[in-house]
Amino acid sequence: MSKKNQSAISPTREENYADWYLEVIKAAELAEHSAVRGCMVIKPWGYSIWENIKAELDRRFKETGHQNAYFPLFIPLSYLEKEAEHVEGFAKECAVVTHHRLEAKDGKLVPAAPLEEPLVIRPTSEMIIGQTFSKWVQSHRDLPLLINQWANIVRWEMRTRLFLRTAEILWQEGHTVHATEEEAEAEARQMLDVYSGFCWDYLAMPVFKGKKTAGEKFPGAVTTYCIEAMMQDGKALQAGTSHFLGQNFSKACDIKFSDDEGKLEHGWMTSWGVTTRLIGGLIMTHSDDDGLVLPPRIASSHIVLLPVLHQPENREKILAYCEELKKELEGLHYQGQPLRVVLDKRDLRGGEKNWSWIKKGIPIRLEIGAREVEANQVFMARRNKAHKDRVADKRESFVKNAIKYLEDMQKDLLKRAVAFRDANVATIDTKEDFYSFFKTGKGFALAHWDPSSNAEEIIQEDLNVTIRSIPLEGKKEKGECVITGGPSPQRVLFAKAY
Amino acid sequence: MSKKNQSAISPTREENYADWYLEVIKAAELAEHSAVRGCMVIKPWGYSIWENIKAELDRRFKETGHQNAYFPLFIPLSYLEKEAEHVEGFAKECAVVTHHRLEAKDGKLVPAAPLEEPLVIRPTSEMIIGQTFSKWVQSHRDLPLLINQWANIVRWEMRTRLFLRTAEILWQEGHTVHATEEEAEAEARQMLDVYSGFCWDYLAMPVFKGKKTAGEKFPGAVTTYCIEAMMQDGKALQAGTSHFLGQNFSKACDIKFSDDEGKLEHGWMTSWGVTTRLIGGLIMTHSDDDGLVLPPRIASSHIVLLPVLHQPENREKILAYCEELKKELEGLHYQGQPLRVVLDKRDLRGGEKNWSWIKKGIPIRLEIGAREVEANQVFMARRNKAHKDRVADKRESFVKNAIKYLEDMQKDLLKRAVAFRDANVATIDTKEDFYSFFKTGKGFALAHWDPSSNAEEIIQEDLNVTIRSIPLEGKKEKGECVITGGPSPQRVLFAKAY
Repeated sequence: MSKKNQSAISPTREENYADWYLEVIKAAELAEHSAVRGCMVIKPWGYSIWENIKAELDRRFKETGHQNAYFPLFIPLSYLEKEAEHVEGFAKECAVVTHHRLEAKDGKLVPAAPLEEPLVIRPTSEMIIGQTFSKWVQSHRDLPLLINQWANIVRWEMRTRLFLRTAEILWQEGHTVHATEEEAEAEARQMLDVYSGFCWDYLAMPVFKGKKTAGEKFPGAVTTYCIEAMMQDGKALQAGTSHFLGQNFSKACDIKFSDDEGKLEHGWMTSWGVTTRLIGGLIMTHSDDDGLVLPPRIASSHIVLLPVLHQPENREKILAYCEELKKELEGLHYQGQPLRVVLDKRDLRGGEKNWSWIKKGIPIRLEIGAREVEANQVFMARRNKAHKDRVADKRESFVKNAIKYLEDMQKDLLKRAVAFRDANVATIDTKEDFYSFFKTGKGFALAHWDPSSNAEEIIQEDLNVTIRSIPLEGKKEKGECVITGGPSPQRVLFAKAY
Repeated sequence: MSKKNQSAISPTREENYADWYLEVIKAAELAEHSAVRGCMVIKPWGYSIWENIKAELDRRFKETGHQNAYFPLFIPLSYLEKEAEHVEGFAKECAVVTHHRLEAKDGKLVPAAPLEEPLVIRPTSEMIIGQTFSKWVQSHRDLPLLINQWANIVRWEMRTRLFLRTAEILWQEGHTVHATEEEAEAEARQMLDVYSGFCWDYLAMPVFKGKKTAGEKFPGAVTTYCIEAMMQDGKALQAGTSHFLGQNFSKACDIKFSDDEGKLEHGWMTSWGVTTRLIGGLIMTHSDDDGLVLPPRIASSHIVLLPVLHQPENREKILAYCEELKKELEGLHYQGQPLRVVLDKRDLRGGEKNWSWIKKGIPIRLEIGAREVEANQVFMARRNKAHKDRVADKRESFVKNAIKYLEDMQKDLLKRAVAFRDANVATIDTKEDFYSFFKTGKGFALAHWDPSSNAEEIIQEDLNVTIRSIPLEGKKEKGECVITGGPSPQRVLFAKAY
């Protein structure tokens, strides 16, 4: 593993990207399959990334005036049915509870006591939250109502993939009600900005902000805004969505408020969510053939101390040096929180121990042997550099610069990701180039599209390519649809997607 | 409501304790029933208490070496069956998923696509986590394995009550594996101490630490430790449990490790949990006939500023004063976190606004009118004092003493709760007194009990009283069972319970 020209993860990205992804997850101990079809176990190293994502997003949600609450896991069938397009979109993947007891029968447990009305496990909570909102909203004084929920949802997907597509999903879902269309529209856009800002700032994951086409929007929404990220295989990952729901759900759920003059109006609503899928995006944005690479701001831990313990006579003094250094580093603050430092005292060979942390993607590794203690220094390796690229640093100097090293790494990882992304977005103007790009190349294509045409069906069928989004940023030149030649108001983003 | 000798909550505790409890929850906007039988909606003010409970417990779990992870919501029927006593204990209240799709039939949606094997929604996760642990644990080097999960569970209870007993429950469940019986036993006791310490320090809820009798223990456990709190009606609330599981679940789930000499042994396990029930306990420990009383350390917000805004000419300067004071107070730290301050600018009558915060239990209310701005002071009311007991305080002095006021209130509330508890624990030595105590009085009885007798059945039948716990603290004198006259190794705690 530590041999030259050999990588810690096999296969490499080049050899088999899909398997590489799963091997990175396994080697970093992020998650694994469970005994329940399609459900994953999120292991401590993976879960701590989710905790960090939650903490920072939650801070941003509260900063923008949202409050957390909690709503039931179950939705009565009769509620789900109220919005036709919505139920149509989710019916195929609903897990349904039909009984509320088990009884022994012929020595085997079987479901007993059928429910009067079957309950669906929430695939998303518009209908059950809407039912409650109809009681909370009476007057314009109750608005805006800005609620978020951290919860699990279930979508019975037939083909699952760790973090990217699972039957049970951890996520957050924001649900808001406003007095005017403009306010709701502004909220949907604001939350898209919150997601985008978080991805750029914390995950070092450059995302495109855009709007879904009618065919790709959330069932029941008027407009679905989204952020799309480019993975290292050039495929797109939808990393978050924010929906302007108009009055569709307030009509279905009877959410009405009286305005200044006492006139009753239906509320204007939004909903928005991100999931543990963000961790899949994080993995595929930064990781390399040696395993996971974690941007420091989201890393489970920032620094690991690796004492070299094979000489019993030095063991005690090396450990004492490490304990003291750990304490000193934990006194530093990074992003408003104490630095997270691990001291790995396991009795493993140095190479094995070192590689386990490379594969886990910890930003900084410090090897501490007798020489380092003697010279009062550390031997530092950084996850964004080659694993042989290690430097000695005076202890004092390292402590002084630790935060700077982390921030430099954060910037470096973002810079790389942006460079990769920009190098793999092609502006394409002919059908021939378009087909050739997606048949032989990788990346996103910016090309013209006629919204009134059937171009989406054609490229989905021929190339398995979809319109990821209608970009919100950049210039909006008119042109001719690259597939049908029809009129196009602006270029849109095409890609194969996860 | 603000009239003399009239309380904000009706009925009062004296009049109807059970209804008083529900009215306190309603008036404080903590939670409400949902459209789904037995499931509650936790409203923002209630959920923020849960967030505070989570944050502090999570800190204590991590401090004692535990890591968070996440396991599936579902348990295959065949897994649940592996531990006979366990499945027997939960079979009657399991929600069962039997289908994974909905289809329209005669214009109505019905469950379609039956699952090959029905899935139970976790009522607790021993069996699904055990299945994963059997893969994680191979060698003694993998131990101790110290895992916690924050999750929702479902227990289909027929009689539900907000926070105390609901079909869906938010909780945490710790699951650990150890190499020796002693270590596992010590872990179960340690986590009981963590729970108890948290209840005393944060919730100002004095709890008794004890051990459940064989008849009351967790299905599948060897020993169940518990904390029991006394509510203001003298009934007991089981506030948390910590189980020493022995090798029962490691045998059922095949969790084996090789010891130093390579010999395979089954792991020794524990599990422990607390739920949103703690909020029910918090309510019934401190609240009064004017509504919720929140101990400052767990309060959603600490201080509310109530500007007196009915004179338009003063409005601007009063609001400016409040905004500035809010900012100054938010710069203070309480329990390592910024002080949580609310500025209530709503256009409501002063009395109505003030009472809404009394009912929400916020620790400190500051009224700010033109006089306060003029004199650079605040008009302070504290939730542990009568609502008419308000004092003027210089602004500078208030800011200087705010943290002290909060800590004084925290201590005062604990002192009151301890005094109430101690006044309502009776030491009882005869059957006659025992029956008379539970027929006419309220509180806990400390009395002798013969573990080999059927005394538990008798008192449950006659009085609806149970043994809440065998105390771990206090002196252990021998005696004669108060019901049967048989030999008793020590006094135990009897009460009616939630």
